[in-house]
Amino acid sequence: MSEKRFGSIEAGGTKFVCAVGNEKFKILETSIFPTGEPDKTMAHVKAFFEKHPVDALSIGTFGPVDIDQSSSTYGAILASPKKAWQGFNFIQAVKEWFSGSVFLTTDVNSSTYGEYTMGGAKEDASCVYVTVGTGIGAGVIQNNQFVGGTTHLEIGHGFIHRHEADFDFSGVCPYHGGSCFEGVAAGPSIEARTGISGENLPQDHPVWTIEAYYLAQLAYDLRVNFAPAKIIFGGGVINEELIEKVRIQFEEINAGYVVVPSLNEFIVSSTFEDNASATVGNFALAQKVLNEDNQA
Amino acid sequence: MSEKRFGSIEAGGTKFVCAVGNEKFKILETSIFPTGEPDKTMAHVKAFFEKHPVDALSIGTFGPVDIDQSSSTYGAILASPKKAWQGFNFIQAVKEWFSGSVFLTTDVNSSTYGEYTMGGAKEDASCVYVTVGTGIGAGVIQNNQFVGGTTHLEIGHGFIHRHEADFDFSGVCPYHGGSCFEGVAAGPSIEARTGISGENLPQDHPVWTIEAYYLAQLAYDLRVNFAPAKIIFGGGVINEELIEKVRIQFEEINAGYVVVPSLNEFIVSSTFEDNASATVGNFALAQKVLNEDNQA
Repeated sequence: MSEKRFGSIEAGGTKFVCAVGNEKFKILETSIFPTGEPDKTMAHVKAFFEKHPVDALSIGTFGPVDIDQSSSTYGAILASPKKAWQGFNFIQAVKEWFSGSVFLTTDVNSSTYGEYTMGGAKEDASCVYVTVGTGIGAGVIQNNQFVGGTTHLEIGHGFIHRHEADFDFSGVCPYHGGSCFEGVAAGPSIEARTGISGENLPQDHPVWTIEAYYLAQLAYDLRVNFAPAKIIFGGGVINEELIEKVRIQFEEINAGYVVVPSLNEFIVSSTFEDNASATVGNFALAQKVLNEDNQA
Repeated sequence: MSEKRFGSIEAGGTKFVCAVGNEKFKILETSIFPTGEPDKTMAHVKAFFEKHPVDALSIGTFGPVDIDQSSSTYGAILASPKKAWQGFNFIQAVKEWFSGSVFLTTDVNSSTYGEYTMGGAKEDASCVYVTVGTGIGAGVIQNNQFVGGTTHLEIGHGFIHRHEADFDFSGVCPYHGGSCFEGVAAGPSIEARTGISGENLPQDHPVWTIEAYYLAQLAYDLRVNFAPAKIIFGGGVINEELIEKVRIQFEEINAGYVVVPSLNEFIVSSTFEDNASATVGNFALAQKVLNEDNQA
């Protein structure tokens, strides 16, 4: 039996990343192009996988999206701000030219699965992965299953306890203003407060203390809500200095309440380069759905 | 094969409830006695089940407790404020006189399982059960499995967004003051604000608006964190008028963000009388562990 090839489609809000990997989830081919209209974008995807055939593929997409495998609209983009994609069905579109096994979940779930199989949580039975970039999202895995009863999670829109030095900031979430994590801790909130993007903001700027407070609160809430073995942060806003601040504030917020392992091991930053966690996660999910289909 | 009998031990902070049920989870015998020292209390438990034999039993206990079935200390009470019970191991204690299958989880998980099998969520593949009484706790079930990676959840200690009319209240959580749900929304917080217990506080008292805001925020956070098919509230503080206020404030907090079913069906109060959800849940968990042991 020849070695299998697995495909990854990472459908982001601004760009698509397509990749092919082998059974060790090594990236063999990759193609990056901007997210345009659905027809044109999917033509790029089709051309890539016709040139580089795979046995199974997995899609990690922006949302909201129907990820319920038993749903008649499994794979459809729901009420996304990207109007042209509303109602577009990834699974159906891919099946027009691909006859192998296909899996679909959210982009952050794909990254979480990558961390779980090959990344920071590869030794753990459970983990949470949090991305902090233009938005805040998180995926949760327990015993090889995604947590999420009827649909994908929206953890970034959980409500927060405001930092006392940050009461005056009105927040940037179009739905919740400054009441949710995304409204006060995603990248755009840093720029809204300071006029400087997070990447360029000096490490000693006081906004980092506020940012660390909110991410520590998020980590604490994730601990009390899911009791994961590990919490992994990734995304454009995250750096190791920030994670160290998060650990310190986590201890203050927890106030000795819940028992946790050493924080250096419990709260970590992603070790994948170039956000490859989603690609590797998709390879692993493609392999999983192929095995399941073969057993069915 | 004769009909099986299942046992329930509900180990609460102030009282124990022991019960025997049949295969339809009907309560046949019950005994209630105060929670005293471990030896004396467990002698009552032993006497009850010697008089009313069962094939398997399940324990739902106050915590914190080791609920990891693969742990060498599975069943042990951890750093509980009830000093006499610290280190006490329920599983070991019960196995001294009972040779059948034994399961153990938290009391709120037992109630959640009761709601899932015979209560408000019996038609659903996932649910959250929240108890609001002297404390706040919640259990989460998805596809017949409890959510909880390494240990049980502590959702009542999640951090909250304060109601603007409640900024001056310092809260009652010994760990988190007024920063967590338990600190500002459990029964003792109502009495701390008003001098009147929740059960006796008139329905038009303004504190109920604050209470409903916090429980609506909790319901919203549970929705974004777990996406359950249903959220069920129980415990001494809950009544139908309050739940209706919670639904109204849930809509305001959500601000149209996450899609939910009709709130009358999504956020409900428990229909079990006398908190029997934990007893029924234990019967179902006892049956489950018996089946698993028979298959092993």
